[in-house]
Amino acid sequence: MSPFVPGTDIRIEGRPGGPLAGLTFAAKDLFDVAGHPTGGGNPDWARQNPIPTRHAWAVQALLDAGCTLVGKTITDEVSLGILGENAFEGTPVNPAAPGHVPGGSSSGSASAVAQGLCDTALGTDTGGSVRVPASFCGLYGIRPTHGRLDLAGMLPQAPTSDTTGWFARDAATFARVSAVLLGEEMPPARPTRLIVATDAFGIADAETAEALGPMLDRLKRLVPDWREEVMAPPGLAAWSRAQRTLQPVEAWETFRPWVERDNPRFAFNVARGLVLGAMVPEAERGWAALTRREARGRLRGLLPPGTVLALPTTPFPAPKAGLPLTELEPIRATINLLCAQGGLAGHPQVSIPGATVGGHPVGISLIAARGADALLVGACLALEEIA
Amino acid sequence: MSPFVPGTDIRIEGRPGGPLAGLTFAAKDLFDVAGHPTGGGNPDWARQNPIPTRHAWAVQALLDAGCTLVGKTITDEVSLGILGENAFEGTPVNPAAPGHVPGGSSSGSASAVAQGLCDTALGTDTGGSVRVPASFCGLYGIRPTHGRLDLAGMLPQAPTSDTTGWFARDAATFARVSAVLLGEEMPPARPTRLIVATDAFGIADAETAEALGPMLDRLKRLVPDWREEVMAPPGLAAWSRAQRTLQPVEAWETFRPWVERDNPRFAFNVARGLVLGAMVPEAERGWAALTRREARGRLRGLLPPGTVLALPTTPFPAPKAGLPLTELEPIRATINLLCAQGGLAGHPQVSIPGATVGGHPVGISLIAARGADALLVGACLALEEIA
Repeated sequence: MSPFVPGTDIRIEGRPGGPLAGLTFAAKDLFDVAGHPTGGGNPDWARQNPIPTRHAWAVQALLDAGCTLVGKTITDEVSLGILGENAFEGTPVNPAAPGHVPGGSSSGSASAVAQGLCDTALGTDTGGSVRVPASFCGLYGIRPTHGRLDLAGMLPQAPTSDTTGWFARDAATFARVSAVLLGEEMPPARPTRLIVATDAFGIADAETAEALGPMLDRLKRLVPDWREEVMAPPGLAAWSRAQRTLQPVEAWETFRPWVERDNPRFAFNVARGLVLGAMVPEAERGWAALTRREARGRLRGLLPPGTVLALPTTPFPAPKAGLPLTELEPIRATINLLCAQGGLAGHPQVSIPGATVGGHPVGISLIAARGADALLVGACLALEEIA
Repeated sequence: MSPFVPGTDIRIEGRPGGPLAGLTFAAKDLFDVAGHPTGGGNPDWARQNPIPTRHAWAVQALLDAGCTLVGKTITDEVSLGILGENAFEGTPVNPAAPGHVPGGSSSGSASAVAQGLCDTALGTDTGGSVRVPASFCGLYGIRPTHGRLDLAGMLPQAPTSDTTGWFARDAATFARVSAVLLGEEMPPARPTRLIVATDAFGIADAETAEALGPMLDRLKRLVPDWREEVMAPPGLAAWSRAQRTLQPVEAWETFRPWVERDNPRFAFNVARGLVLGAMVPEAERGWAALTRREARGRLRGLLPPGTVLALPTTPFPAPKAGLPLTELEPIRATINLLCAQGGLAGHPQVSIPGATVGGHPVGISLIAARGADALLVGACLALEEIA
């Protein structure tokens, strides 16, 4: 299945002479491209919303830097999904794991980069939507510090967790694109301290944790001052529950006016998520908000400037495509155990190709202090020089 | 919008010389027609279920009687709907109220008969799906005694409430078709007693109740021994709540294996109904089951053989098509106040063209003892002779 949105054919040349001249990119179909409908991965979103007249901020930034737009990519419906199976537009192929999902919701963007159809691609990450497909497709991917980028022209889901992210096949391209979108230089960088998140490695499948061992060893050689520590003292399950309470509530607030006006079509599980988001009791929201506050304090304390925390991006490589819904639910829940901290605390995170398990890629992630995005991208470059 | 399922083109000649020779019919796309997919009004039902090799019982019965099948008609998704707006296949036109819904879920069947595209059409009625479109389109329609017809080859929804029904434009055709499907003669018949359901008339919009006055007077001339009485002593709202508890629970049981395997696409409100059906607490089910038992006892006591009860079929004529979801919900709930007794108690009910309100039709209904379907159809014939 092509990673591009069926029926679209878009090409916009980048401005000549910019820092990304000669590179190409694709944009997840949540980003506005002037004159083209923003489909949002749902057949009723584009039809029921006006055609944008301006490019999204991130699209414009890449075009201005000389990068050429070559298409809009498939996304899970209005970004509500983590596996990349869209019942209306299809499942983009995962070239690194044929027959397996690409990961989502930035499924087409990851697939397009992994297939070499473009050099980089824009995604969004609210609950893992860049990190998971980066892990499953064997790519570099970033979820920047929450609130750092201008999200104008990006279809929102849960604004207190939404970010714009991107993918690349190699660290050098990843750094060039990151420099443009983050607006600062991205030289190779060596963190001063490394924390290995023991609870997160404990969540991963045993063979995934073991397969990531050599990459972890390289990280330890890059950052000799390392130690092991629990990331989430109340349990990753508690953090996950908090995120899976707050995010659906916000998603319902975001999409409610559209849903209540137009009664749009959704895959069953997407509609169910919205229904459940509408039904969260106030007491649950209160608990989740307090747990978020605690998680933010914990990561702020754990990650002073210069320190990075390592964890598996996903607990396993890409699951098979086409599994029944009942089998997907526990898979989604387990992935969320590792991803929830991103939307909850808003720290920047990069996923780095980490290992293969049964021939399929799985990523390792680094998290740093809020605003220390450059340290993470720089570490990707520095890591390449470590044997 | 055509009442026929997009992309279908079906014609099967009836057996020559039967009692319905010369008549044509259409079948709601919940009825199996051998060699053609049963679409169920949902894009993932047909795709994910085998093509039937036998006709549904009711289709075979009409073909054997000489009636010619001319098409399969649009239905609300897997019969979950009462207004006739299908987000995937469109809204069949209501020729009696252009710009207004045809009523559902047997929307295409009612539309096809009302447009004169066939003489009769098969529908299903679980919670009002024949009665409501009959009322909105100005047709005769029947919900037979629950359990009387063979439902083989009909896509189920809530088996303790499901029935096969049908429509006609005139009482004579209605009686001919009814004689075949009910398997008994349908002479004109005069009930011995008439009860006017005061609570049901009180639920109707004032102008609808008033408009039905002349038809009620004709009924009183047909059955001079009449009285007014409350149909539902605990309140029609209590009966409606019971039906709106039991029916979604059963619908979820019916569709759960398919939904949990295939994660099908639905309009939001259809998915929401299934989600809520899955979440009904046991205590609510228990209360609803007891209320159903009371309702059955009440109607059995109220309707000895020979007695009929009159009520407005719907509380108002057809609402406008294309209303926002938030406006549809109270409309659906109000319609259910009058229809719930059918699925709850299982008595036979005919809807008769009763009046027009603002130029749009609205039906009057007669209910009789279980098994007394012929009395109701016969009363339709006899009523024609009353000035």
